Amino acid sequence: MDLLARLAAIVGEKSVLAEPDEISAYTQEPRGLFFGRALAVVKPSNVAEVSRVLALCNESGTGVVPQGGNTGLVGGQTPDSSGGQIILSLRKLDHIREVDPVSDTMTVEAGVTLARAQNAAEDKDRYFPLSLASEGSCTIGGNLATNAGGVHVVAYGSARDMTLGVEAVLADGRILSGLTKLRKDNTGYDLTRLIIGSEGTLGVITAATLKLFARPRARTTFFLGLETPAAALELLNLLKASMGGALQAFELLPRIGVDFVLRHLKSARDPLSQAFPWYALVELASQHDDGLTEAALQLAARASADGVVGEAAFAASLAQRADFWRLRESMSEVQKHEGGSIKHDVSVAVKDVPEFIEEASRLVVARIPGARPVPFGHMGDGNIHFNVSQPVGADKSAFLARWREVNDIVHAVVAKFEGSISAEHGVGKLKRDLLIEVKDPVALEMMRAIKSSLDPKGILNPGKLL
Amino acid sequence: MDLLARLAAIVGEKSVLAEPDEISAYTQEPRGLFFGRALAVVKPSNVAEVSRVLALCNESGTGVVPQGGNTGLVGGQTPDSSGGQIILSLRKLDHIREVDPVSDTMTVEAGVTLARAQNAAEDKDRYFPLSLASEGSCTIGGNLATNAGGVHVVAYGSARDMTLGVEAVLADGRILSGLTKLRKDNTGYDLTRLIIGSEGTLGVITAATLKLFARPRARTTFFLGLETPAAALELLNLLKASMGGALQAFELLPRIGVDFVLRHLKSARDPLSQAFPWYALVELASQHDDGLTEAALQLAARASADGVVGEAAFAASLAQRADFWRLRESMSEVQKHEGGSIKHDVSVAVKDVPEFIEEASRLVVARIPGARPVPFGHMGDGNIHFNVSQPVGADKSAFLARWREVNDIVHAVVAKFEGSISAEHGVGKLKRDLLIEVKDPVALEMMRAIKSSLDPKGILNPGKLL
Repeated sequence: MDLLARLAAIVGEKSVLAEPDEISAYTQEPRGLFFGRALAVVKPSNVAEVSRVLALCNESGTGVVPQGGNTGLVGGQTPDSSGGQIILSLRKLDHIREVDPVSDTMTVEAGVTLARAQNAAEDKDRYFPLSLASEGSCTIGGNLATNAGGVHVVAYGSARDMTLGVEAVLADGRILSGLTKLRKDNTGYDLTRLIIGSEGTLGVITAATLKLFARPRARTTFFLGLETPAAALELLNLLKASMGGALQAFELLPRIGVDFVLRHLKSARDPLSQAFPWYALVELASQHDDGLTEAALQLAARASADGVVGEAAFAASLAQRADFWRLRESMSEVQKHEGGSIKHDVSVAVKDVPEFIEEASRLVVARIPGARPVPFGHMGDGNIHFNVSQPVGADKSAFLARWREVNDIVHAVVAKFEGSISAEHGVGKLKRDLLIEVKDPVALEMMRAIKSSLDPKGILNPGKLL
Repeated sequence: MDLLARLAAIVGEKSVLAEPDEISAYTQEPRGLFFGRALAVVKPSNVAEVSRVLALCNESGTGVVPQGGNTGLVGGQTPDSSGGQIILSLRKLDHIREVDPVSDTMTVEAGVTLARAQNAAEDKDRYFPLSLASEGSCTIGGNLATNAGGVHVVAYGSARDMTLGVEAVLADGRILSGLTKLRKDNTGYDLTRLIIGSEGTLGVITAATLKLFARPRARTTFFLGLETPAAALELLNLLKASMGGALQAFELLPRIGVDFVLRHLKSARDPLSQAFPWYALVELASQHDDGLTEAALQLAARASADGVVGEAAFAASLAQRADFWRLRESMSEVQKHEGGSIKHDVSVAVKDVPEFIEEASRLVVARIPGARPVPFGHMGDGNIHFNVSQPVGADKSAFLARWREVNDIVHAVVAKFEGSISAEHGVGKLKRDLLIEVKDPVALEMMRAIKSSLDPKGILNPGKLL
């Protein structure tokens, strides 16, 4: 019996897709930047089937590419060009196994979309804070495999911090039964957090028990005009000092990015009466119904009197809040209307964000006169999406041909500040070669040793990360 | 040249102790429950010396027992009885390398005591929330190696959650340079959290970069009388729902434990006007100066009107706050005055705490009539120190001889609730054999595979954990 027939015997014939038109939605990601070929797409329905599929692939030495919502930005979920790998789609594992509002936990399967998981928590009057642009289609399995970040890391940490335990299948089909609601368990190595963020190279996550939080009763969102990133840092520290626990998001936006959005997104409008070089989008939340907005207004007034903040607008309605967030959420998307854009997903210590932005911008523009840096993102946790739009009127292809050259400039500044070349998107295919250049060699050796010990045949997501 | 001379050549003669009277304070822990013999105590002064010592021990196949403040409760820091192991004391690595109040990070060496680290943060108007009874003498290295818990896990998680990166030396002397101030870094496996909690079996932590938090401006502490653990759970959920971010500690105390303290600790007094079967010690904190105590008082009044709380006392002064905490902090200590005490450090899902306490108490008393369960501890995170005092007037040795029998009863109930047999103290020597019985076999296999891949000769803390 050939491999496809044996796979079909495990998951059923309808759950093994091999026709090119059936699998094209899996072999490339939506932007078309990463693609490959695959022997088949295999869609198991439960952890037992995942286990049997992996045991078979391990026996036959077949590479396995785990895939959830196929929204990853670094190619981690796409196969290579050999046509010999299978894509293991986890989408059919889509049960919400349990929501426990008293223990503040939720156990969901890998194929549940992030939005569905958020809603399941909300249905029990609880809050699951992981939130990112693709939440409607990305899945919990992918979120955990890539240790997803998003806008609430400043308050709740990354996906890794929000997870209590995972169920995962190892390369040879063994099942790690690591689901747990325990907040404290000191019985050995932290295998859960080892698998989270390993990009499918150590095991296939099939379910996870996630932390839930009390649902905020009050929320206030404001949009502030600032002169410099240094002023944003000052504002951030004022907020942390006086409203620490309430700070949910602190996003930095440059004027040029806001301009892009206002130019290309019809529904967008400037919340402030005048233009500022920089903006902060700040969201606060509280379990109390009262006092939050007043406290935030007082803080903004003080910051304004001290010259930290130029102008501040508060969202007076949910619609206005959505308007503020639309400026942030569409900032990446609209860049395509301004020609080529060279992207970076980097982080530095929070203290170093202003200097990093200044230096990287200066060096990029010195190399490519007219290039337009659009550094924006999660300043509260030091993660800046340092994107660079082409000079106005320049040739797009010629500009994009300098991708690696611009990367080198920006990543050299990142290295100077001991930052990370992949803050939240992961390594995947995109940064695998780069990783070898910038990562501590001993850390790489440890990673390879661990990989070999858990996946000796190297069948799990080959060619990704390591 | 023999091993001791070669060790002396690395760290200096004065930093190799071999005389029995010099090393007795290292070969046993203060309670005298765990002890062993050692070839020598080696006290390196910096990471380079640690590296050279380990390279030498790896070459010679010498077992290395890392030790910090020697306060561990499960024997993880004591050598075996062979006399062939060395104790690697990290106490001389005691520099606070940096406190960065803007990035909210602090980099300290392994030998810094927890109290010193807390103070270093406070000196820069920041807060490091890890807090436990032995904080005056335990060290950061030991805290991380054992993933220490303590009273603030409900708000901040365990030591693992408070750490951004570690510097550690592997078995063969290689140095993992993992110190980082980054809040987001998705460039590979989470080696930091793998080493944290590995009890010195994967690497020797020499320094760590820790998360800091805004220092609370207001704090309020209250002591509440309750009828049942179920009422405590209800109170906990009221607090989480209405004051989520402010909750810093939620400790459960049984009347018998309070009685023990009142009986044996002269300075202790009952904060309430009448006796209750159970108590909660609750601490709230906030970045605001105002409103916290009022909000807590209102909540207590509502909980009282609803019959959840019997009586509540608020700490009106720092002295009163210290009084409340003394009842909790001395609860373990005073048990020795009541004869033999059989200890457990277990956790279950928060929801299951009341049922667990009821069932474990009932079964223990059924087996040993007159035995006095004293279940107390960190109810906010599900971690109960389920200690059992001997029947009044019984023979102490005869009671203590039933240690394993009582363990089996309690741990069976823990297993029923899918809990942990070691919530915060770790495994060490004490629970190594037990671990094999209760841990997921695949998890154990993974742990062994990782251990072999990183320490093939098995020189790091042999006989502990695995």
